Amino acid sequence: MVIVTDKQLQELGTKTFMAAGVPKDEAAWVTDCLVKSNLKGVDSHGVQQIPSYVKMVQGGRVKPGARINLLKETAATALFDGGSGFGYTMAREAMRVTIEKARKVGIAYSGVQNLGHIGRVGRWPEMALEENMIGIASQPGGIFIAPWGGMERKLPIAPIAIAIPTGKYPPILVDMSLGPLAGGRAEILAVRKQKLPLGWLIDKEGKPTDDPAVFNRGEGAQLPLGQTGLGYKGMALALTEQIFSGPLIGATQRPGVFFQVINIEAFTSLEEFKKGVDDIIANIKSSKLAPGFKEIMIAGEPEWREQERRLREGIFLDDPIYQEILDTAKTVGVDITPYKGKAGAAEITHPSYTLRERY
Amino acid sequence: MVIVTDKQLQELGTKTFMAAGVPKDEAAWVTDCLVKSNLKGVDSHGVQQIPSYVKMVQGGRVKPGARINLLKETAATALFDGGSGFGYTMAREAMRVTIEKARKVGIAYSGVQNLGHIGRVGRWPEMALEENMIGIASQPGGIFIAPWGGMERKLPIAPIAIAIPTGKYPPILVDMSLGPLAGGRAEILAVRKQKLPLGWLIDKEGKPTDDPAVFNRGEGAQLPLGQTGLGYKGMALALTEQIFSGPLIGATQRPGVFFQVINIEAFTSLEEFKKGVDDIIANIKSSKLAPGFKEIMIAGEPEWREQERRLREGIFLDDPIYQEILDTAKTVGVDITPYKGKAGAAEITHPSYTLRERY
Repeated sequence: MVIVTDKQLQELGTKTFMAAGVPKDEAAWVTDCLVKSNLKGVDSHGVQQIPSYVKMVQGGRVKPGARINLLKETAATALFDGGSGFGYTMAREAMRVTIEKARKVGIAYSGVQNLGHIGRVGRWPEMALEENMIGIASQPGGIFIAPWGGMERKLPIAPIAIAIPTGKYPPILVDMSLGPLAGGRAEILAVRKQKLPLGWLIDKEGKPTDDPAVFNRGEGAQLPLGQTGLGYKGMALALTEQIFSGPLIGATQRPGVFFQVINIEAFTSLEEFKKGVDDIIANIKSSKLAPGFKEIMIAGEPEWREQERRLREGIFLDDPIYQEILDTAKTVGVDITPYKGKAGAAEITHPSYTLRERY
Repeated sequence: MVIVTDKQLQELGTKTFMAAGVPKDEAAWVTDCLVKSNLKGVDSHGVQQIPSYVKMVQGGRVKPGARINLLKETAATALFDGGSGFGYTMAREAMRVTIEKARKVGIAYSGVQNLGHIGRVGRWPEMALEENMIGIASQPGGIFIAPWGGMERKLPIAPIAIAIPTGKYPPILVDMSLGPLAGGRAEILAVRKQKLPLGWLIDKEGKPTDDPAVFNRGEGAQLPLGQTGLGYKGMALALTEQIFSGPLIGATQRPGVFFQVINIEAFTSLEEFKKGVDDIIANIKSSKLAPGFKEIMIAGEPEWREQERRLREGIFLDDPIYQEILDTAKTVGVDITPYKGKAGAAEITHPSYTLRERY
């Protein structure tokens, strides 16, 4: 386990991408998105992606410097082609346009087809937050979920992120999938030999299983969001997201992403809105606690706290992950003295996902 | 149990409302919405509401003939005051404006404060469907849900409806709450002494309970959508909806409703969209069935089927419900010969909610 600062990772990533042929601004932006994921405790979407991104650039699967291409627009909508470029660059451009449209006409939608990985979905509505607007982003993700009544993987895990400005509380930042096990979480749980609650997974006979290894072997499926008997609700939401990131934005071959921005001032004053949201949050937090809980947290709150802490104490990386990044840097000609802080906060043994499991 | 046709109920309802002082068009429209709910098997939001609506009109709580008042608008947004009028009238006006805006600029949002009951939420996105557009409607509903980590009722049940045009399949019509037990379902289950799966309700000590009577006594709370350990996801969705139908549309004292319409042709051709959605549905329906299931149904499908059947076979009403409607009609001076068909399809013993429980 090593500890590095966000600034050190920013330098390492930017230099590495630049040496692989990525223009300076784009190299810095992609790295910034990765490092911000680490800061928020979402390590799965952090700097551990650098080696695979460099390989994608080298293999021609991601085109550095590609520009976004506007296919179609109205005053409130825009449809883009991402030109096989970095998803981070395309998502930023699309979100900028969406925000400007929402500023003028109150709300806006955009879709992007044909783009690379956009990383942590929550990053994009955060751009709306910076303008005191509400932002929504979604992409379908892996096809992991069985329909209600079925036992095969047919529906996407459907990550969705929603950012909502607040007054005195940290901004609301929903950043989640509509299924039980997004990203590589099943792999990590299987490695740790952890069991899952029943109701998350079914095996190849459609029977409930608590073993994530079953899912990792490609057998069975995840169940849609919802308690016993209510999975049709999660199915309906995942299906809607699949249609919005697919057929709606003309992304029939390969799913795209869609963004939505709401300019609060088209409806009400920002001040009254924030007061109203604060009142709702205060009321929720005032609830008597359920057995075993110490606090009620609002979506995004654990991540904002983790960000403050990691800005102060540094970012933890597993040694093999850090070494792989250094090796990648070396292959493109960047020779950097490894940064290593002391592993003082040793209570964190698995930076990835420990955060999400805390609440 | 009596069987009546939709046309008979339409006549009875319209005459009754008119006699209570509701203008003819409004009387016919409110009744139409109620009868269509019965046709779809959503009897809780059907003609059994007539007596309470008549009382609201008589008591001055709902103002017949009230006009919607535009408070604020942009090219893509509108905010309305419902003037304490019939929710059905206000929702129709707001949705019409939202559809026209979406036709021009691709997508549109509207909010309505200060309005009466809007009935079955699915009715409003259906208006978008009639124009080959996507519609979304939501209102918070009762405060029934405990936050993740809490044990008091703090979050709304959050009904949401989403209508999506299809090609060869029946249109997708999501019409559900984000909690386990919307509307009066807990009461009906308690009357029938039915138990619930664990994970839906907690009692006043925060312990799981399977008894709907606990909830009806005002104790405990419903749990947010999500399997064991995933309730924070349902909480995040309910919170978002609470903010959209509340502070966003300036409805801080009493929650309002919000509508969203997406003009598919702002993004892609209707034909390609419908083909893409059909492909997704066909793929889902092709899934191997889970044990105990005969078919995979898409949101809205059971209700479309029920509508076809009830158009053919008639609408079943419990005798006391039908009698109460006739009594109400009589008090306002409408004396109508009771319509009574033969109860041939006697296998339906509880028209309310039996449908939802079938899938």
